[in-house]
Amino acid sequence: MFEAEIKNEVLKEVLTVISTLVDEAKFNFNQQGLQLKVVDPAHVAMADISLSSKAFESYKAQESSLGIDIKKLLDVIKLAKAGDIIKLTHDEEKNSLIVKVSNVTRRMQLVDTTSLSDPKVPNLSLPVKLKLEAQHLSQGIRASESVSDHITLAVTPEGFELSSKGDTDFVNLKLPKDLIKELNCSETVRSMFSLSYFANMIKSVSAGGDVSLSLGTDYPIMMEFEMAEGKGKVKYLLAPRIEGE
Amino acid sequence: MFEAEIKNEVLKEVLTVISTLVDEAKFNFNQQGLQLKVVDPAHVAMADISLSSKAFESYKAQESSLGIDIKKLLDVIKLAKAGDIIKLTHDEEKNSLIVKVSNVTRRMQLVDTTSLSDPKVPNLSLPVKLKLEAQHLSQGIRASESVSDHITLAVTPEGFELSSKGDTDFVNLKLPKDLIKELNCSETVRSMFSLSYFANMIKSVSAGGDVSLSLGTDYPIMMEFEMAEGKGKVKYLLAPRIEGE
Amino acid sequence: MFEAEIKNEVLKEVLTVISTLVDEAKFNFNQQGLQLKVVDPAHVAMADISLSSKAFESYKAQESSLGIDIKKLLDVIKLAKAGDIIKLTHDEEKNSLIVKVSNVTRRMQLVDTTSLSDPKVPNLSLPVKLKLEAQHLSQGIRASESVSDHITLAVTPEGFELSSKGDTDFVNLKLPKDLIKELNCSETVRSMFSLSYFANMIKSVSAGGDVSLSLGTDYPIMMEFEMAEGKGKVKYLLAPRIEGE
Repeated sequence: MFEAEIKNEVLKEVLTVISTLVDEAKFNFNQQGLQLKVVDPAHVAMADISLSSKAFESYKAQESSLGIDIKKLLDVIKLAKAGDIIKLTHDEEKNSLIVKVSNVTRRMQLVDTTSLSDPKVPNLSLPVKLKLEAQHLSQGIRASESVSDHITLAVTPEGFELSSKGDTDFVNLKLPKDLIKELNCSETVRSMFSLSYFANMIKSVSAGGDVSLSLGTDYPIMMEFEMAEGKGKVKYLLAPRIEGE
Repeated sequence: MFEAEIKNEVLKEVLTVISTLVDEAKFNFNQQGLQLKVVDPAHVAMADISLSSKAFESYKAQESSLGIDIKKLLDVIKLAKAGDIIKLTHDEEKNSLIVKVSNVTRRMQLVDTTSLSDPKVPNLSLPVKLKLEAQHLSQGIRASESVSDHITLAVTPEGFELSSKGDTDFVNLKLPKDLIKELNCSETVRSMFSLSYFANMIKSVSAGGDVSLSLGTDYPIMMEFEMAEGKGKVKYLLAPRIEGE
Repeated sequence: MFEAEIKNEVLKEVLTVISTLVDEAKFNFNQQGLQLKVVDPAHVAMADISLSSKAFESYKAQESSLGIDIKKLLDVIKLAKAGDIIKLTHDEEKNSLIVKVSNVTRRMQLVDTTSLSDPKVPNLSLPVKLKLEAQHLSQGIRASESVSDHITLAVTPEGFELSSKGDTDFVNLKLPKDLIKELNCSETVRSMFSLSYFANMIKSVSAGGDVSLSLGTDYPIMMEFEMAEGKGKVKYLLAPRIEGE
């Protein structure tokens, strides 16, 4: 049993994060709220999203897992105007999700959840953690796109560095300590990532937001950020590319 | 003989309606104003437009029929800024239309009108009539586009309903009486239409406008709306798709 | 040796002019500022740009010629926000240009200047000169695009005329004396140009600007305009198409 109302903008934030990784996902609802874990088909990136029942305008749910076609649901919420409330109801009998936006009702068939994975998010202990404005990273990514298809992130006690190296050209984003909101680093770490995956990860952060990054050397990066005014949390994991590969 | 000045915006409104149906049209001018009837190549939709001479800034005309290439004329008015006056003159000798927008003069050859139909608009007696905001219909159309290529309209004494049914999914727009401006319905009627034709029809209404719909069961729909601040009228007819086709 | 800081907008103006003609160009810096001459591959159009050292926020240069990939540099300045200062440094050892935009550093390899021409701009004595708003020309160009691929410019002591003639259609832009800022014409001149080249030339003028045109009969047209608030000058030459060609 699941029946809830949610602001257009909040639902859009959730769907935007997942849509960078998968086309369909298993939405797990229970009394506390929504739990959602997705991994991309190449198993390079993973997102773990939780949205408290308080992020909804109204919320009634017993344990239920709904397989949802992300693109279909994004299409429906495009009908909504800013501030519109979207009503979601699980019709168990017909195995469908009923979505109501103002006077429009959209019934969409659910996807079989047995084919959808519920990936286990690894518990990593990463030595370095920092918090910074996502827009710095966006700028570094855009600069790198004309140079290479991968980037290297390095953190030292002095600051953060994103760099990208092509055959002849080079891009470098340097953020000294004073441009970083929090920096917890006693050793230098350094890992390389796929530029397109990293770009997708950053795209999922709403403009103007902060992100926390946890890193090690040749380890996955973990990016965490809040959504729905703190009533939701996203944990994003991205596997490294090992240099010399 | 035809020579007139018209506001950019008004001419654009007229051309936008026709351009959804035909590439070329026969513009009939007389002392009262412009009369224009077009039918799409598949004979599924038809528009009947009349624009009073009062909708023009200046107007001098004797009976004349001009075959105009709609796209060419739309291209010329793109040169105009908001509020610009466009001057149209028929050069009978050279069989061309002279269009003046600020300092630019564009002479375009007229299309032979013998090849252009002047369709007879059928006089239908449709049992149900209602008036509503066009934007409700736009929302219903956009929601339907991901589900099917046809829609069903139904009117009862209680309200209006637009629905669209795909293999697994379903869209429904319900407008109860209080969201309808005028409702004249003593029997339930229901007809199915091609979604793309219906979408084009609604696109021709300027944003924020009202439309009047007249309907029967398995009958064409007639949509009427005003333009040029009431100095022009559009009657749009769309043939039904018979269910079970 | 070259090291300078320049406003995002000023650098963009310079690059926009050149990018309509070439992909790579030889930027000549000396103590007075930047000198830049480019000719398009077909040798139909040529631009001669000079930017005073005063157009820069800071400027240090000894004679140096840098071969720059225009598109790469345009990509980097896209990272900048309005009002951002861009720092350019020539790294002679590595034969590269270092571009700094806020916290991002972009190192781009320079192009070999021996392959880049430094065209000699001919010294033409053209009998007619006039100054007018570039936007009038833009309107004439847009109107002509649906009619032909060439335009004819004519100047008389009474005014300026741009016309374009297709098989059946015709476009004409007439600017009488009072719509022209300066008119220095004692004889009638008339030349034909390629529409796409002329359009590119006008596109390089910033919106709302004035241009000076110098013309003869079947002679190249010379267009001059200022940039960087008068601290830079562009001279643009376009060869005529001889009528009857």
